[in-house]
Amino acid sequence: MSTNPRFDPNFTPYVVNAMGPGTPERARVILGSLITHIHDFAREVELTPAEWMLGVEFINSIGKISTPIRNECHRICDVIGLESLVDEIANKIVTEKGESPTSNVILGPFWSPNAPFRALGDSIIQDPNPNGQVTYMHGVLTDMETASANGQYDFQDPNQSENNLRGKFRSNEKGEFYWYCYHPTPYSLPTDGPAGVLLNLMDRSPMRPAHIHLMITHPDYATVINQIYPSDDPHLDIDSVFAVKDDLVVDFKPKTDDPKATLDLNYPVTMALKKHHPNPNSAPPVSSFERAQQKL
Amino acid sequence: MSTNPRFDPNFTPYVVNAMGPGTPERARVILGSLITHIHDFAREVELTPAEWMLGVEFINSIGKISTPIRNECHRICDVIGLESLVDEIANKIVTEKGESPTSNVILGPFWSPNAPFRALGDSIIQDPNPNGQVTYMHGVLTDMETASANGQYDFQDPNQSENNLRGKFRSNEKGEFYWYCYHPTPYSLPTDGPAGVLLNLMDRSPMRPAHIHLMITHPDYATVINQIYPSDDPHLDIDSVFAVKDDLVVDFKPKTDDPKATLDLNYPVTMALKKHHPNPNSAPPVSSFERAQQKL
Repeated sequence: MSTNPRFDPNFTPYVVNAMGPGTPERARVILGSLITHIHDFAREVELTPAEWMLGVEFINSIGKISTPIRNECHRICDVIGLESLVDEIANKIVTEKGESPTSNVILGPFWSPNAPFRALGDSIIQDPNPNGQVTYMHGVLTDMETASANGQYDFQDPNQSENNLRGKFRSNEKGEFYWYCYHPTPYSLPTDGPAGVLLNLMDRSPMRPAHIHLMITHPDYATVINQIYPSDDPHLDIDSVFAVKDDLVVDFKPKTDDPKATLDLNYPVTMALKKHHPNPNSAPPVSSFERAQQKL
Repeated sequence: MSTNPRFDPNFTPYVVNAMGPGTPERARVILGSLITHIHDFAREVELTPAEWMLGVEFINSIGKISTPIRNECHRICDVIGLESLVDEIANKIVTEKGESPTSNVILGPFWSPNAPFRALGDSIIQDPNPNGQVTYMHGVLTDMETASANGQYDFQDPNQSENNLRGKFRSNEKGEFYWYCYHPTPYSLPTDGPAGVLLNLMDRSPMRPAHIHLMITHPDYATVINQIYPSDDPHLDIDSVFAVKDDLVVDFKPKTDDPKATLDLNYPVTMALKKHHPNPNSAPPVSSFERAQQKL
């Protein structure tokens, strides 16, 4: 705890200890730590009433702009790196032998559970765009330890467009997957709300590098949720949501033997058995306040 | 910083250092500290994705229920003791000789700038309530160091009712003030929003002890914003917003010589010259996001 002798050292423990005996134990741990850190922050910077009220109105503005399809607080958390950090805490897998599977990164606020199942080899492009560079994307799923193929995976590829460029695929018995998609395009976070205010205040770019979202599930293996980024994207070092990791940067190569595609992307995925995962049955974040509340 | 060796020690500095050169210096200090504390909190409790998403939806719900006359984030800050702490940081006055004036406590979310000026001796009761105990409240303003009277103060007494029980008074040339008001009544914070969810989760009472709000201003003296509490109130030790201080607990006494009142309250106020105040020209918190933003 940051201790400035000007301030009452008993105040924060008094507030934390005001929690009653009916507080669930995990809530007591989380709220006790959160309240302590918020108090330490306020003392550390000697937060003024005007600055505090700025924060109050900023937080009020987050909920005001949010809707069932716009989760502004999720976005704010991405901008301050919190979703990336929570993802690291939940999903970091390193075995005693130092092996690690394909990295996880954040799910982001654009995921939709409604992506349709498609056949292997199909395209996720429903509404063709004349500027799009069609890519034949393919790879194989391997086990972190044995490097053998594993079949029967479900796939989700959520992308930022709402009714297009999404799909679920099931790999074949060799663990192979392949489909057509576009080379992705960099985009800006929406800046018309509190996230834009915060990014502007921090003199930061709202851009995200181009990316393809992937979610790979299997009954025996830890779910991989990640995003992959073209190696020539100029925003790799300034991703506004801190979700680039080295092993997620990929090379798109020219393809000349396929009339349906001009680019080729080979993306092998390494998975880890659930036993290696710190939270093997953790689901991706749910966005239902009520459901999560019941679990706490 | 809490350091769990499982997690990348470079991530938080990377996020903080992403702030660009155009970030105002004070914003850099505040946001750097806030981001670091939020990250430390997440690592310390190993926040799960589901718990994080609970927090996301909780924060979204704060803004959704807020209106120009209901500031739910202000209330949440009160519930976690943050407004009390910010008030302590801004207003704590202790001279080298150990003298201290009447305590400040939080303004609270119910303050209105629209209270009308009233003549000394008037009543702030506009709408009489048959259950109310009318009190003759009086006192004198004295200087912390000289104990001499000082005239020409402005007063504001904001109370929780919207168009009643508020008033501004100007003390006389001896620093005396007197008016009629009600003995105050304890009340519950509104529990139909996120503050209620949080209090319920923490197994805490939503009650505040009965109180009278005071704001005392003078050109040469530090503004006093406080609340005073009847000594027999049962909620003094469980105030849901942590705003009770010993010198703010007062005794209401029977009054038999005044047909207009059944109780007497003598409340002397000790003020400090602005030179003793750490932030002598600090205004009470403004609730305008736009104005505060310009100042940061």
